[in-house]
Formats: sequence, structure tokens, C-alpha cells
Amino acid sequence: MRHVTVIGLGLIGGSLARSLAARGVVAYDADGETASRAADVPGLSVAASVAEAASGADVVVVAVPLPAVGDVLDQLGGYEGLLTDVVSVKAEMRELVAARCPAVTYVGAHPMAGSDRSGFAASDAGLLEGCPWVLCLEPDTSIAGWLDVARLLVEALHARIVPATAVEHDAAVARISHLPHLLAAALAELAGGDASALARALAAGSFRDGTRVAGTRPDLVAAMCGGNAPALATALDEALVRLTVARSLLDGPDPITALTEWLTPGYQVRAAWPAAAGLERTLPLEREALLRLGRRGGWVTAIDPSGDAVTVVEPVG
Amino acid sequence: MRHVTVIGLGLIGGSLARSLAARGVVAYDADGETASRAADVPGLSVAASVAEAASGADVVVVAVPLPAVGDVLDQLGGYEGLLTDVVSVKAEMRELVAARCPAVTYVGAHPMAGSDRSGFAASDAGLLEGCPWVLCLEPDTSIAGWLDVARLLVEALHARIVPATAVEHDAAVARISHLPHLLAAALAELAGGDASALARALAAGSFRDGTRVAGTRPDLVAAMCGGNAPALATALDEALVRLTVARSLLDGPDPITALTEWLTPGYQVRAAWPAAAGLERTLPLEREALLRLGRRGGWVTAIDPSGDAVTVVEPVG
Repeated sequence: MRHVTVIGLGLIGGSLARSLAARGVVAYDADGETASRAADVPGLSVAASVAEAASGADVVVVAVPLPAVGDVLDQLGGYEGLLTDVVSVKAEMRELVAARCPAVTYVGAHPMAGSDRSGFAASDAGLLEGCPWVLCLEPDTSIAGWLDVARLLVEALHARIVPATAVEHDAAVARISHLPHLLAAALAELAGGDASALARALAAGSFRDGTRVAGTRPDLVAAMCGGNAPALATALDEALVRLTVARSLLDGPDPITALTEWLTPGYQVRAAWPAAAGLERTLPLEREALLRLGRRGGWVTAIDPSGDAVTVVEPVG
Repeated sequence: MRHVTVIGLGLIGGSLARSLAARGVVAYDADGETASRAADVPGLSVAASVAEAASGADVVVVAVPLPAVGDVLDQLGGYEGLLTDVVSVKAEMRELVAARCPAVTYVGAHPMAGSDRSGFAASDAGLLEGCPWVLCLEPDTSIAGWLDVARLLVEALHARIVPATAVEHDAAVARISHLPHLLAAALAELAGGDASALARALAAGSFRDGTRVAGTRPDLVAAMCGGNAPALATALDEALVRLTVARSLLDGPDPITALTEWLTPGYQVRAAWPAAAGLERTLPLEREALLRLGRRGGWVTAIDPSGDAVTVVEPVG
């Protein structure tokens, strides 16, 4: 992996490029000012086009928002090597790549890190350090390509590599990332307007934390939520059912007792999260075994030099 | 205010007692272990009963959860002085005091501070420093009593005194405190079970912050949410309407564009919160003027020694 290319220098792409700068990285951003600022980072070479950035690359990382992915793929200029990405929805991304760049070796990916800030100015070499990083394993994914991407991320970022299918990924992030953004936006909107000036003055920790991600640019949130619409619809339906139950309890004869019971499952989940990590063990490199690991909440921490086995960890309890 | 009494040494009562310990404070807690630990704090005298703690007090602060308030009021032993509290619902609290202790001078209060931890062990003299502190002003509230409580809180804690009626307070906290607890609990519950082990492993900042208050003891959350059921029902109805709109957009032809519009009002509210504080000015001490100040999101920062005027601040923009 001598030549790594990152297309798109927003929060995630910029942070990735900064993390890889010490080993050398080629990058491209359509925004001239971003490109110019990025060129000042030692070890970061800025190309003049997507095709130039991809030319001769050992791996290309697509790091633009979902609505911009199609154009980037069209501009790859016949690149046929290893392609990965950091886009937060994976099934639609997989379809886009299959339609536009059928000749590349594609390994879908998604680092679980973020910020309510956005853009290259907010990027930070530390943001992705040690974070969970989904690497999609489909029936047609190249195991060699998967290992190459995993090795790069483990070595450069100490990433926790989580194997999952695109469908499994999309269902999971709908619940733990996209749904929180919708709830935060609704909560923030309810505190708007002159009639809520008192409420905003009284708002403290529960409002601050419950609405933090509502401060993220709406177009970026909409791209990930709208790009994962079917899975998010399922998660939102479940949330609406639970909240409608709570609503009915408020009309009941003893809302305090009833709500105590209603609140308890969420309390138990939150109190047990994040789970402690178990001991490291070795797992033979096998597609189904890796996917089972991911379904149990486990991750890969190292790749055996032989390429036949990986070191893995699972949560305890 | 020589003799201040705090009944109940949980997170808020314990933090208040610790803050007041330097000037001397009398406290009571029904739990023997808590009482014993509190007695070790210099300046904090622990009484053997509610009646003993209240006897001779210049002000009694009731700091027990709503379901325990009735018993505490019944045990005040004929106390007829100034009574305030830190309970998070104010209309029901007002009714309880009127029914059980009609002879006291009652000023309902609620500090806007908290933690997902609870109990005296989590209490901290810094927790309430400078926080917004609602002091209820009803048509029958004693202005002299209101001023006495306000002066104590400003002097000891640099509290931002927010004037409001009990009904206004309850509507405001339903939106910015109680509703966030329901959303957090639903979000956390959806990430439970073996089928969500992958989701929990991928959960990062948006889940962490969106569910933080779900880690609060369910009985404490239920006491405040269930004790404010009518106002919370109104807020939850509005949230359900907004979320149901979002749900319908997910089935539409262009969810990304539609969600961008849906997300924008919440983004704007969150981006403008918290509002900057304007310059201090003087306000004549008058009930309606104070309530108007509170409705605009303003607060009292100092009380004129004459008792005829207060120094106030309002948010800008």
C-alpha cells in the first residue's frame, strides 16, 4: 500500500488524510480553498482531478457525501484497483459502485466517528484513532482486498475492524446513528420560537446532549438518513411504537409507576453500554466466521502476516 | 438567613447542602448511611428527624423526589416559616404544599442542573454553581419570601434566578428536560437484545449523547415525568407529530431533499443555543415585570439591598 488516495477532504476524509500524511497520501477535493489548505499539510499531496488522484493508486478511499458519490465514481478515469469509502450507508453505496465502476475491487467501509462540526477545518488526525470501522463482507467481496484495507486501517489508525454485510450495517446504524439525529432535530425544534424562550433559558444537560447532533449541517444529516431510508423507517417505526406507549401511560391512573416500568429496559441497555472487551483470541480467516464475530459485536484487532488468521476481540456479557 | 435546612441529601439536596456548608447548614436524610456520611462534611449538621431539622429554621428546602414529598411535609412538625424546594415539577408541588402545610410561606423552586448519577455519593458543591434556578411567582406568592430565597441562592451559588409561574415552568421543563428523558430511553431500548449486538458495538457519539440520560435511575425519571404528565403529554404529542412527518418523508420519492428541509428548523434552534447574554440592567421589583423577564428567557443576577429593584439580564437575539 504505497499509494493511498483520499477523494473528498471533509471532516472524515480530511481526518483520514491527516492520519495518513506521515506515511504519504494523495488527496483531491473539488473545493479550491480546501485543496489549497490541504496542500499545506506535510505529506499530503493534492491532485488536480479525481482521475489524477486515482492514477496509480493502490487503494482509493471515496470520502464525499452520498449525493456526490456518483459523480466521483464517474471521474475515476478507468481506475480498476482497490476501492473503499467512508460513506455512512452501505447498500446504496454498493449498488452505485456496481453500476458505475464494475471493474474495481470494492470493499465498503464506514468509520464510526464524527462530530457535529464538518469540513476540512474541523478535521483532526486524532478523530479516527482506534474507532470501530465497519468493513463490508459480501459473498462477492475479495478477501484479499478486504485484508489489504483492514491491514492499512489497523496499522495506520489502530481501527477496530468490524465485519458485516451492507444490510446488517445499514440496519445497525439506522438505530444508533441515524435515528438519534431525527430525535435530536425534533427535540431542538420543539424548543424554538418566542413562546419557548423560557424553555431555552432553562435548558441544561439533558437538552444539550439530547440535541447535540441537531447542530450538524442538515444536508449532511439528510444524506445519511435519506440514503438509508428503508432501514431508518423500520427503526423509527419501532421508536414511534415505544413513544406512543409512553404517551398512553401519561394519561393513565398512575403514570409514575407505569413509566418506571417503561423506562427500565432502556436504562438497562444504557447502563451496560459500552460492553467490556474480552480477551484477544485468534480466528481463522473465514468469511462466515468473521460475519458471526461482527453479529456478536466483536472486531478484528490485528491481521496475521500469513493472511490466514486474524486476532479478534468480543464484548463480554 | 442564619438557619437553612435541607431535607433530603440526594444528588441535588446533597450538592446544595455541600454548597451551603461553609456558611452552616442543617440537613436530614431518611437513609441512615447517607446521614452518617453527610455528618462528616464540616459545617453540615445532621438532624435526627424532619421536625428537628425544621425547628427554628429561617428557610426549609425540600429536596426529596416528588413521591416522597407528601410524607416530608406531614413531618414538618408545625413549621410555619419560609419553605422552598428543588422538585422538578411545580404545579403538583404547589398543590401538595397548599393541602398539607397551608401555614408556610411557600416559594416553589427548581435548579436546572443534574447528572445521570444520583445519591449523596454523586453530590458535588460545584454542581449548582451559576445554574438557572426557577423561582415561582404566583399571584399569592410572598414577594418578601421570594426575595429572601433569591438572595440566598444568588449569594451562595451565583444562581441565575428565573421568575416563572408553576404552569409556565412545567410546560418549559416538559420540553427541555422530561421529553429528552423519554426519547433517550426509547433510543437505548432499541439497541438492546442479542440482535443488536452489532449496533451496540458500532454505537458512538450520537448514541452516547442521545442516550446519556437513559442511564438515570428509572424511578427518579418516572417521578419527574409522571409528576408532570399533562405538560409532558403535550410536548410528546408535538414530538410524535414531527417524527411522524419525518417517517412519511422516508417513504417519499426524494427523502434526502425532504429531510434537509425537515431538519433545518431544529438545526437553527440548536445552532443559536445557548443564546448570548445581554448587558445587565435594573428592573423595578414588580411581579408582572419579573414574569415578563422570565418569559423572554431572562434572569435575575442580583437583588438591590433596598429590596426595591433587581439586576437582570436577558438573552440577545
